[in-house]
Amino acid sequence: VIAPGPARIALSLAGPGLRRDLAAIVGEAHVSNGEADRLAYSRDLWPKTILWAKEGLVPPPPLVVVWPGSAEEIAAVVRFAVSRKIAITPYGAGSGVCGGTVQVEPGIVLDVKRLDRVTRIDLSTREADAEAGINGEILEHHLDHAGATLGHFPSSIYCSTLGGWLAARSAGQCSSRYGKIEDLALGLTFVSGEGELVRTRANAAGPDLAQLLIGSEGTLGVITDATLRIAPRPQARHFGGWRLPDVDAGVEAMRRIFHAGLRPAVVRLYDEFDTLIGGGGRKGAEEPGEGHAGPSKKASRFMRAALRTALDHSKILNAFAAHAPGGCLLVVVGEGGEAEMAAEKEGVDAVLREAGGASLGEAPGKRWLSRRHAVSYRQSPLIEAGGFVDTMEVALRWSAVADLYRAVRAAVAPYAFVMAHFSHAYVDGASIYFSFAGTGKDPEDLLVRYDATWKAALDAVMKGGGTLSHHHGVGVSKAAWMPAEHGASMRLLRALKLSLDPHGIMNPGKLGL
Amino acid sequence: VIAPGPARIALSLAGPGLRRDLAAIVGEAHVSNGEADRLAYSRDLWPKTILWAKEGLVPPPPLVVVWPGSAEEIAAVVRFAVSRKIAITPYGAGSGVCGGTVQVEPGIVLDVKRLDRVTRIDLSTREADAEAGINGEILEHHLDHAGATLGHFPSSIYCSTLGGWLAARSAGQCSSRYGKIEDLALGLTFVSGEGELVRTRANAAGPDLAQLLIGSEGTLGVITDATLRIAPRPQARHFGGWRLPDVDAGVEAMRRIFHAGLRPAVVRLYDEFDTLIGGGGRKGAEEPGEGHAGPSKKASRFMRAALRTALDHSKILNAFAAHAPGGCLLVVVGEGGEAEMAAEKEGVDAVLREAGGASLGEAPGKRWLSRRHAVSYRQSPLIEAGGFVDTMEVALRWSAVADLYRAVRAAVAPYAFVMAHFSHAYVDGASIYFSFAGTGKDPEDLLVRYDATWKAALDAVMKGGGTLSHHHGVGVSKAAWMPAEHGASMRLLRALKLSLDPHGIMNPGKLGL
Repeated sequence: VIAPGPARIALSLAGPGLRRDLAAIVGEAHVSNGEADRLAYSRDLWPKTILWAKEGLVPPPPLVVVWPGSAEEIAAVVRFAVSRKIAITPYGAGSGVCGGTVQVEPGIVLDVKRLDRVTRIDLSTREADAEAGINGEILEHHLDHAGATLGHFPSSIYCSTLGGWLAARSAGQCSSRYGKIEDLALGLTFVSGEGELVRTRANAAGPDLAQLLIGSEGTLGVITDATLRIAPRPQARHFGGWRLPDVDAGVEAMRRIFHAGLRPAVVRLYDEFDTLIGGGGRKGAEEPGEGHAGPSKKASRFMRAALRTALDHSKILNAFAAHAPGGCLLVVVGEGGEAEMAAEKEGVDAVLREAGGASLGEAPGKRWLSRRHAVSYRQSPLIEAGGFVDTMEVALRWSAVADLYRAVRAAVAPYAFVMAHFSHAYVDGASIYFSFAGTGKDPEDLLVRYDATWKAALDAVMKGGGTLSHHHGVGVSKAAWMPAEHGASMRLLRALKLSLDPHGIMNPGKLGL
Repeated sequence: VIAPGPARIALSLAGPGLRRDLAAIVGEAHVSNGEADRLAYSRDLWPKTILWAKEGLVPPPPLVVVWPGSAEEIAAVVRFAVSRKIAITPYGAGSGVCGGTVQVEPGIVLDVKRLDRVTRIDLSTREADAEAGINGEILEHHLDHAGATLGHFPSSIYCSTLGGWLAARSAGQCSSRYGKIEDLALGLTFVSGEGELVRTRANAAGPDLAQLLIGSEGTLGVITDATLRIAPRPQARHFGGWRLPDVDAGVEAMRRIFHAGLRPAVVRLYDEFDTLIGGGGRKGAEEPGEGHAGPSKKASRFMRAALRTALDHSKILNAFAAHAPGGCLLVVVGEGGEAEMAAEKEGVDAVLREAGGASLGEAPGKRWLSRRHAVSYRQSPLIEAGGFVDTMEVALRWSAVADLYRAVRAAVAPYAFVMAHFSHAYVDGASIYFSFAGTGKDPEDLLVRYDATWKAALDAVMKGGGTLSHHHGVGVSKAAWMPAEHGASMRLLRALKLSLDPHGIMNPGKLGL
């Protein structure tokens, strides 16, 4: 098992010498080995750490936290870490849900949030330059002020950074129109594991070297800034809500929309149960299982009650869910130019009508948009009830989408209750966003079932031709599946690691490296 | 200088033992050390090799040529080459113009053309699987038969392969709509420099490892097959021809078209002189400098005459060209769905009218399309007149396009006559396709001026923020500029090389590796 085990807190390990040496690089004010900082940086939003925390356990806290103020300072910190053979974990805003910033061996957490400048916004060339530590919402605010948008809206936008997006190969909710972050990056700068500052351009001759760093999750270096493709702020939007007969009809409609050349920013299909308890976008309903921290308040209440009865009956609950009445809700939001949007709405509506969809008007789309960043931090009710919740998002070719959805449901059924929505769509395929909720007889049993849920789910994903992640990344939680994901090409990743981080100090244990 | 010098032919070097050992892997019929084969495979369409050939010189011929029949046989050949420390140069159809298949040290040329199957075409998922050695036109024929298209139409399509496209990061003429080959590849299989067969998927978790091989020009391994995104065969096309006042107005119009969200498959702007002598698309005129083998027949006749007067007066000729009357021709071709094309044409026309364009009707677009693969192999008239011709294509951000165009013209003026067209456009920028023609007092002086032309041109490109190549690749001809292109990120490329080809046998000397 690559995932780090939790440890009783032992904060006395961090020597003051380390703090002093780093202070010489970044300044006294920008380094800390205080207990509060070390505890705060010992975990991110990986749900397993919450289960641990209930038992008074945390992952190994870092020895020290640094906040460098420039790429040069980052390079100096890395070179210092090389000289001392100390692990470095780059850190953005800590919103990752796979333990990507959880330290496997205690070392230095390098927070890049002080690198937060936007140095250029040029709509005439559609480019912006920004530093890696900038908060996503603040970046979008700067762009909006200039009449622009990045078009990148992960539900974590209030608590994630540009660097984190690049490191984890993030997708925004509108990626169907604007592309994922790897499509938006025209180049980036990073500090390698040897402390060298390297600039890459996506369109330079030879292989696209910027792509090596995108998705590398801090294992190859620290991303310090990027050049991004921006778009003009949309002039118009269109909204839709549709009821589709079932998942198959909905998935097929999504495929047809994107294969018709239409590019609505958002098309989300909720499975029968996600529709029933989440009610995605219906009047009076809250958003279904969405984002990092699990289901909404209403969903949580339901699940909490369900958990009591489902303690050993998740199979029955899942079987019930499979026959939930009411069909599937599909939400559409388009954005772009005035005329373009009119034509796009007409095209999307035609496909959905032909697929057997019944229009629910604009309200579901509007409601979804207004609440799209309403990430819930209310995990506690479920946890307090002795349960766990987590989410898994995978990318699939169209040929695999419907079958894999069913395979994961079946595989997880013995361990947890499952619901899902089909969250992003492209010409090439779609992503499915699963929400799991389960319980255990006691804390130990809970962790056993939590792990069993993930194992069953990811094994089914691998078998069904899906990928380990569409946008959350791998971190430590999925690291053990990387060889299954990559086969012989895992060797390429290991070779990259050896080349760019020969001392093995960069975020050890992540991505299976 | 990384480029290989020419050598007097010395074919006696190849031992029969090598042929026998390789025959044991690929079969007697699929290996040759015959003089004709070795000579034929000693060069590709790099124009410099034609200048050499006039003097009875060829690059070092390979010791042996093999035509493996499967990925497994390719892997076995590579492992054999590792065991003997013999260089391998992967070979598609030999249409490269940068010497990418010219052997720096005599070794094995590995021709992949026997891997020519299309194993899947599925329009419902928009995917096709094909082997690397398939000829481009034949691949497109298979797709067309299934109602599909790859949308990838390099002017070399009759004499290039899928593997070559991937290896050189090719662009088709319609890349503005469909993307370049790196955008179309959903995954690929390759044999590493250690003889290991590796499958990559673009959407697998972690960095996109397929991108490592795309553009690697045979220096990291041999690409054996790929999964490609396909599109439905277009239902409709629209055509346009416009006269723009000058290059600046034309470039600005191109930018506005793509920034308006329009995606015409082809928008090509010819500079004043390319318009005047090429007449791109005008009635009775032939295509201007296009593709691999230089200008058209009419252009060649003109240039041949010009060469005589321009022997030492290329500066004057270029000054004349800068004041050529008649403005710039811009050709538009759109393709896609019926309704979409009507709207697209309306949008494109509106932008061009506003830019001061005068419509020439549909004819220029139609004529361009009908002749788009009319690659000229008539280089000899110019060569016979004691001259040289070559082409250089570079990618640029919009902010750099117009200035770099002028900078390259000025830099090359002392050595050669220059004309150019702006051949591909995207949201992020455009490519410029330069044609050079020059001469020399004698064969030696010719080569000196040829090299001086390239040095002046590429130095200007590096200074002006361009890339070394938009779609021809680097090969040996531009290899010396790779450190300037990449800066510190050249180290990444070297690290990749060391990892995937630790014995240094894969296409040595290419990409500056």
